[in-house]
Amino acid sequence: MNHTPAELTAPASLLHLDSSASPTEHSVSRQLTALFANTWRERHDTAGYRYQYRDLAAEPVPLVGPGYVTLGQRLAAHGVLPPAQVAAQVQDPSEEQEWALTLPLIQEVLAADTLLLGVPMYNFAVPAALKAWIDRITFPGAFTDPRTEQSLLRGTRVVIVTARGGGYGPGTPREAFDHQTSFLRMYFGNLGVAEEDLFVIHAELTRAGAVPALAQFKELAASSLATAREQLLTLATADPRQSEPTERQAAASLS
Amino acid sequence: MNHTPAELTAPASLLHLDSSASPTEHSVSRQLTALFANTWRERHDTAGYRYQYRDLAAEPVPLVGPGYVTLGQRLAAHGVLPPAQVAAQVQDPSEEQEWALTLPLIQEVLAADTLLLGVPMYNFAVPAALKAWIDRITFPGAFTDPRTEQSLLRGTRVVIVTARGGGYGPGTPREAFDHQTSFLRMYFGNLGVAEEDLFVIHAELTRAGAVPALAQFKELAASSLATAREQLLTLATADPRQSEPTERQAAASLS
Repeated sequence: MNHTPAELTAPASLLHLDSSASPTEHSVSRQLTALFANTWRERHDTAGYRYQYRDLAAEPVPLVGPGYVTLGQRLAAHGVLPPAQVAAQVQDPSEEQEWALTLPLIQEVLAADTLLLGVPMYNFAVPAALKAWIDRITFPGAFTDPRTEQSLLRGTRVVIVTARGGGYGPGTPREAFDHQTSFLRMYFGNLGVAEEDLFVIHAELTRAGAVPALAQFKELAASSLATAREQLLTLATADPRQSEPTERQAAASLS
Repeated sequence: MNHTPAELTAPASLLHLDSSASPTEHSVSRQLTALFANTWRERHDTAGYRYQYRDLAAEPVPLVGPGYVTLGQRLAAHGVLPPAQVAAQVQDPSEEQEWALTLPLIQEVLAADTLLLGVPMYNFAVPAALKAWIDRITFPGAFTDPRTEQSLLRGTRVVIVTARGGGYGPGTPREAFDHQTSFLRMYFGNLGVAEEDLFVIHAELTRAGAVPALAQFKELAASSLATAREQLLTLATADPRQSEPTERQAAASLS
């Protein structure tokens, strides 16, 4: 049987997550992730694609429970186990229920070659809605290739769109308050996402039009938003990385 | 009418929060906050006290919804409003429901002169369970004295007990991964808690007995736990700060 190049190349796949408590008309992060997703879909319309959307605010990921911790800690003590083999290790209904909530979320991440996250800054950090997803997907061994012990996310592109009411960029007085950017960079880096595949796009000072004390920053806010849109359009239309995603999917299908 | 000194001094009050997904028998943070709370109650048993407990994992605080954001942003744009006056500003059932979920949590914080938090490290940061509480209580103006515009938490003692599977202390290779301590210090400092009233007690390497790679750190783990227990016993039996809590409560009762 002969394979055409198209058959050998998996379709581009995007996992799109939003975590803002606000609906799109009031949410800069939702508007920006939608811009990326729409542009990305147009870009891939001819060749075909897979697109998965999850609204972490409207349909919250349940907090991890005791069974999640006992299952994860028992498995972690005995090395890496691929997700497909975890169900066989479940010891009670609590662990079974926790794993049933967890596996689909992990599979969505493994199936994506681009991960798009809309992340407003809430109290200087990521929203609880996003942390609930992070706390659940980060199961021991979930993103590790059982053969090579390398990360299965080597080759996954992660595009993070933040929206912040104030200004937290380098050199601003509140730079040190930002526990959103450094956390997300560290978290995804630790999961194995390559630094060159991790993009953090900021829309700063989004409350400048509404809060009197920030009114002087309206132009800066507009400029920040325009730059964010440009960066996202560039990323969404960039050449897809053909080789790594295919390798990744082959590895993921083994697990 | 004459007041005795006892009538002029409000009873000591403790708000005790846990956020570990694990039950007490498996949770170092729960065991340590229980040690503090039990010791504190014994210390105050004669004079009387108020004690409030909240399990943020077993009974999760709901994620903030769109009505929370619209209400908060509308009020923030017009300066500080004390919590008691917020209900009159509610414009629809969504805002009303959000505020009904929020006000009791804020009142619990305002009523406490000691705030005790049990905080395991989940993915290098605070658990989603705790962030959901933080995202909800941090309502514009909630902790600001409307007369003086000073923080109502000036005088509140905050005791944070962390439990971390690995080691993240100063000088360790993973120090930079800790997005738990710096976040909580910054968050409570920004709310107005005085640096000298903010205590962060760490139990490090709590997984040393279970994870083979950490087995070499068992003694360090035991020493870290013993130190944490000592620090908590000292804090729980320390002389209560009589003056500031009374001032705080007088201010809180106005709002």
